[in-house]
Amino acid sequence: MAERRRMAYRVHREILDEEEVDEMAEKSDSKGSLTQKFKQSMRCSGPRLKSCLLDSVPLLSWLPKYSLRENALGDLVSGISVGIMHLPQGMAYALLASVPPVFGLYSSFYPVLIYFIFGTSKHISVGTYAVMSVMIGGAIERVAPDSNFIVWDNETNSSIVDIFTRDAERVRVAAAVTFLSGLFQILLGLVQFGFVVTYLSDPLVRGYTTGAAIHVIVSQLKYTFGISPKRYSGPMSLIYTVIEVCYLLPTTNIGTLVVSIVTIISLILAKELNAYLSKKLPVPIPVELIGIVIATIVSWQVNLDEKYGVDVVGTIPSGLQPPVLPDVSLFGQVIGDAFALSVVGYGIAISLGRIFALKYGYNVDSNQELIALGLSNAFGGIFQCFAISCSMSRTMVQESTGGKTQVAGALSAIVILIIVLWIGALFEELPKAVLGAIIYVNLHGMMKQFMDIPALWKSNKVDMVVWVATFIFTVLLNPDMGLAASIGFSMLTVIFRTQLPKYSLLGQVPDTDIYRPLEDYNQVRQVPGILIFRSSATLYFANAEMYLDALREKSGINITKILSAKKKLEAKRKKLEEENAKKAKKAAKEAAKNNTADTKGEPEETEQKDITFIEMDPEPDPSLPRAIILDLSPVNFLDTVGVKTLRRIWTDYGEIGVKVVLACCQTGVVDNLQAGGFFNDKVTKSCLFSSIHDAVLHCQSSGRLSQDEENRFTHF
Amino acid sequence: MAERRRMAYRVHREILDEEEVDEMAEKSDSKGSLTQKFKQSMRCSGPRLKSCLLDSVPLLSWLPKYSLRENALGDLVSGISVGIMHLPQGMAYALLASVPPVFGLYSSFYPVLIYFIFGTSKHISVGTYAVMSVMIGGAIERVAPDSNFIVWDNETNSSIVDIFTRDAERVRVAAAVTFLSGLFQILLGLVQFGFVVTYLSDPLVRGYTTGAAIHVIVSQLKYTFGISPKRYSGPMSLIYTVIEVCYLLPTTNIGTLVVSIVTIISLILAKELNAYLSKKLPVPIPVELIGIVIATIVSWQVNLDEKYGVDVVGTIPSGLQPPVLPDVSLFGQVIGDAFALSVVGYGIAISLGRIFALKYGYNVDSNQELIALGLSNAFGGIFQCFAISCSMSRTMVQESTGGKTQVAGALSAIVILIIVLWIGALFEELPKAVLGAIIYVNLHGMMKQFMDIPALWKSNKVDMVVWVATFIFTVLLNPDMGLAASIGFSMLTVIFRTQLPKYSLLGQVPDTDIYRPLEDYNQVRQVPGILIFRSSATLYFANAEMYLDALREKSGINITKILSAKKKLEAKRKKLEEENAKKAKKAAKEAAKNNTADTKGEPEETEQKDITFIEMDPEPDPSLPRAIILDLSPVNFLDTVGVKTLRRIWTDYGEIGVKVVLACCQTGVVDNLQAGGFFNDKVTKSCLFSSIHDAVLHCQSSGRLSQDEENRFTHF
Repeated sequence: MAERRRMAYRVHREILDEEEVDEMAEKSDSKGSLTQKFKQSMRCSGPRLKSCLLDSVPLLSWLPKYSLRENALGDLVSGISVGIMHLPQGMAYALLASVPPVFGLYSSFYPVLIYFIFGTSKHISVGTYAVMSVMIGGAIERVAPDSNFIVWDNETNSSIVDIFTRDAERVRVAAAVTFLSGLFQILLGLVQFGFVVTYLSDPLVRGYTTGAAIHVIVSQLKYTFGISPKRYSGPMSLIYTVIEVCYLLPTTNIGTLVVSIVTIISLILAKELNAYLSKKLPVPIPVELIGIVIATIVSWQVNLDEKYGVDVVGTIPSGLQPPVLPDVSLFGQVIGDAFALSVVGYGIAISLGRIFALKYGYNVDSNQELIALGLSNAFGGIFQCFAISCSMSRTMVQESTGGKTQVAGALSAIVILIIVLWIGALFEELPKAVLGAIIYVNLHGMMKQFMDIPALWKSNKVDMVVWVATFIFTVLLNPDMGLAASIGFSMLTVIFRTQLPKYSLLGQVPDTDIYRPLEDYNQVRQVPGILIFRSSATLYFANAEMYLDALREKSGINITKILSAKKKLEAKRKKLEEENAKKAKKAAKEAAKNNTADTKGEPEETEQKDITFIEMDPEPDPSLPRAIILDLSPVNFLDTVGVKTLRRIWTDYGEIGVKVVLACCQTGVVDNLQAGGFFNDKVTKSCLFSSIHDAVLHCQSSGRLSQDEENRFTHF
Repeated sequence: MAERRRMAYRVHREILDEEEVDEMAEKSDSKGSLTQKFKQSMRCSGPRLKSCLLDSVPLLSWLPKYSLRENALGDLVSGISVGIMHLPQGMAYALLASVPPVFGLYSSFYPVLIYFIFGTSKHISVGTYAVMSVMIGGAIERVAPDSNFIVWDNETNSSIVDIFTRDAERVRVAAAVTFLSGLFQILLGLVQFGFVVTYLSDPLVRGYTTGAAIHVIVSQLKYTFGISPKRYSGPMSLIYTVIEVCYLLPTTNIGTLVVSIVTIISLILAKELNAYLSKKLPVPIPVELIGIVIATIVSWQVNLDEKYGVDVVGTIPSGLQPPVLPDVSLFGQVIGDAFALSVVGYGIAISLGRIFALKYGYNVDSNQELIALGLSNAFGGIFQCFAISCSMSRTMVQESTGGKTQVAGALSAIVILIIVLWIGALFEELPKAVLGAIIYVNLHGMMKQFMDIPALWKSNKVDMVVWVATFIFTVLLNPDMGLAASIGFSMLTVIFRTQLPKYSLLGQVPDTDIYRPLEDYNQVRQVPGILIFRSSATLYFANAEMYLDALREKSGINITKILSAKKKLEAKRKKLEEENAKKAKKAAKEAAKNNTADTKGEPEETEQKDITFIEMDPEPDPSLPRAIILDLSPVNFLDTVGVKTLRRIWTDYGEIGVKVVLACCQTGVVDNLQAGGFFNDKVTKSCLFSSIHDAVLHCQSSGRLSQDEENRFTHF
């Protein structure tokens, strides 16, 4: 077997030498990927135009094949159910976004229609989404705060906020940020940057949405208690708002609070009932719709607004509004928010879309999704909508009521259109507290995400830290800055994970060619005279020093001490040699002087003894291993620091007579070594081995460094 | 051999099963390192107090052993040479730091003495350093700009800058930022955070110092041309300053410019001469000292100041100044600068220190260095010094003139003390332009670092990008913000490197157990019916999606299509079965009705045929591979996304009858899989193999999934 193995090893060595490194470098695809993607996006020309059109407008490819018999009924039921949900959610989320409720209805109409044409996911319900709304609200409150619209009221002789002008300005800001975020999405989609969503890992998205939910709750407190706290913006604004709310609690409007509590309790009970009956009913009861209808009727009959001072929705204009080009002068102020919105909106939509694509076995094109959402938002921005994404709760209803294609979404948009055109105005007496209550109850699912913490604690502590950090960043720094900080942090964890690697010495599983860490397995035996060292992580600048330290510690070789001892010895030897040379000269002189046969031999002898004594000392220490094998299989790449570290190990240990060889390098790592100048006429590729076992066999057969080799080291 | 191998593989499997995972988790040292370090730093108590004292005050351990005979002469010569260099450099760098020149001399005295007591590097020359000085200058110009000190001069009837008050304030700011940076360093040293320096990779440090050199040059232009541009601070201030300088060029003071040019040319010539004579002279000619002496004499004789308006150094008070506690109220404004200073100062000193420690075979304790520098700065701050680090040029002189221990540094401090006490006042007539010229000439080495770009281009392109990005960040964002941005960027590159991994299918080197990428080697052959897949990088959130795509592409298995086809078939089969059941019922009824022997057999036969037809279809496609082996050797860790991805591959491919096994997992990766819930009663550890060859042998012997196994998958 040993013979065969040696042959195999020779075969491998030949292969390795045969391959020219230049060729390898050419093959390296590390730079190719992005260029390729760009080319792909550009190749829509000539005969491929038709397929390209079908790709860009998915509607054209799937609608002609639409099977009425199979899908129509499910889509219809699902579309109406979702449309009914859009109404209360749209109005409630408009409050979150700090714009009048009717704009929430617009946002549930235009973008949904556009997504119907360009979207590729069949099951997600795009439209208003709490997290997006609260982000827009943050931007709006910053750009157009109440304090900008204070006018002197001659009637009451006090300064009041000019609500009409303020709301008009706020809608303009919302439209601008929405339009801009749409442009960002289209742009990202065109350059095929759909992959950016990979930075939004699962723990990050869940921690983020939970943190955003806290913002949503806090921003609704004022409607629940009927108070008017100052609005804060910037980092820590949540904390200030909570303090302000606590401070204002004594001024709570009791009527509003009663409405809130009654609505919340009724909604929770009704939802429980829904869950209980879910198997018996074909379509869930539209509890929210019933809730707002009842609340509106009660409010209208009891005259809650005037009698108890309960804040109501107010004027809802019937019909649609003409398109208005967004105000470009606002773009500069909201560019950051727009970017955050575009990433978050896309991240949420694509992750939900993928879940259903997986469940029903179809593909969601991440770049086409970006473009579809971008067009929805850009178009929506022109029609004064606010930025949309896709809502978890509506999507669940859309799927569970039998929705099978995008047609369900289109139908829900038509339901909203009908409401906007004819029914909307009926809801003018609806208390805002009811909308707040609807938001709370809808956040139920997000609050459940707190259970991720114990689950992640068990499965992956680093991911738990990412979750918690994202949550804290989002709560403290607001959703926009919080997202940036969280992504930064989650990337840092990758560094941290490779910064505390596990260093181990490997040993052989007896009678096999398998090598495993000595400390993990009992049956593993160290190979006599050979150290096999492995780090569990890539070797690069952030852990190179640790690699050296760990090797020193694990090997037990105090390289600094040995080297300095060696240097001293060298110096001593030189000195002695010089002295010897002097002595010899002297002796020769004396010999020449005396010129007698007896005294001639003696000085020469002592001289020789001295030299021999010194030359014997630097013999290799028998406690030192014969060779060190560095197992580089976990190394993904080498940077210049990594290459230098390996080189330093090679020379340092080489100088004290220990041979260093590298095993299991990937092709890319060999390229890095080559380019980084690791190899030269002294260090050739013969120190590379394709497996640990090959390296061990080689080291066992070749034995210690020859004296010649060692000399080369000494003069390095 | 095959028999033996199978045995070995069984041995390995037993080992793997034997080890309890809980035990593994306990052993995992991923969390231990920091705690351990902290404990180490806390364990100075009881009987270890003495050794702890020796560790904290290295002077006590090495000074008693100081060999006068060996070191004294070298240290004396070197100390005087370096002390002489401290004089011009200290004064010049004080200009950079925007404080009067004498404070540069103080900075060359107190901190150097403190380092002599606490430092562990024997060869570095701590003291003023150009990069640190320009950073302090930036902070000072921001906190105490000229515009704060404008007073109305009654004599000239114009507004002038009250230089005396301004300089006093600036010294206070410098002392505050220095003291604070010292505190940071001590703190970092006490919590054993010396490892932070690992983030300062070599390309980063070199790019950074080159970028800082540009700042140094620009800030000296005003002295060279004798103009007074406005000072800018904040990002892009360098660009504004350059524009301002260009704008003011017509107002150049010709006298100053002549002095500058003459000095620069003389210094360059003298340095060339020095380099030429370096082998013949025991000590280099102190060209800078000679330069300032000549310049002072000329300036005094010719009366450059009054006759030609050449700006001179001005009053240099003799003697030392009493200690003053730094102004705590300034800390808030300079905390960012102080932190940047502490990191940069430490980074420069430790990297130089390590170079010489390596050369002379001794150890530099990174945490002790932090504390030593921190004490130097904190103490220096009290004595109105500005922050110090260690200068490359002085260190080179200290080492080349024979300095062997920290005593050389202490002697250089004494030289400076003598100058401050008695000689300093003689240099009052020295033109500032001469100091500027000295700075330029000293930056010579840093400018050479531009040659790194082509060198890195050849060896490692990512590192070149880090260099260039660091340079640009430093130039545009100033040294403090630039450092943060650069460190962030260099960490991002780690993400990028793992984001574009190379995915390959592996094949067998014939007659061996070696598996290599098919596309890299000609002699490698694919194992029939088995796909071996490897990514060159760790599998984690940022590349999990790509891993799935690459596996799909490389394997050529359109899993979505197959799965959806299978689902449709399943549905059809169900339908048909229901129909068959109906038919059978009907037939049974009819049979019961007719009750004749002839007609009984027929409907049963057709029924059976139908069922058979449907059941035959989902047989495994012969074009599918028997098994997929995922080689996980390059995986350093798995996060939850990684575990989910592997699990998804296992179920998806399992459902279409392809077995998925994992090979070459590190122990930590197995722990991650375990904690992440990868294993359950269906997925057991039997899908882990210690090498690809084991996995191949297993897959070849076990063959396709049994029908029973496949059924399990279907009902997953």
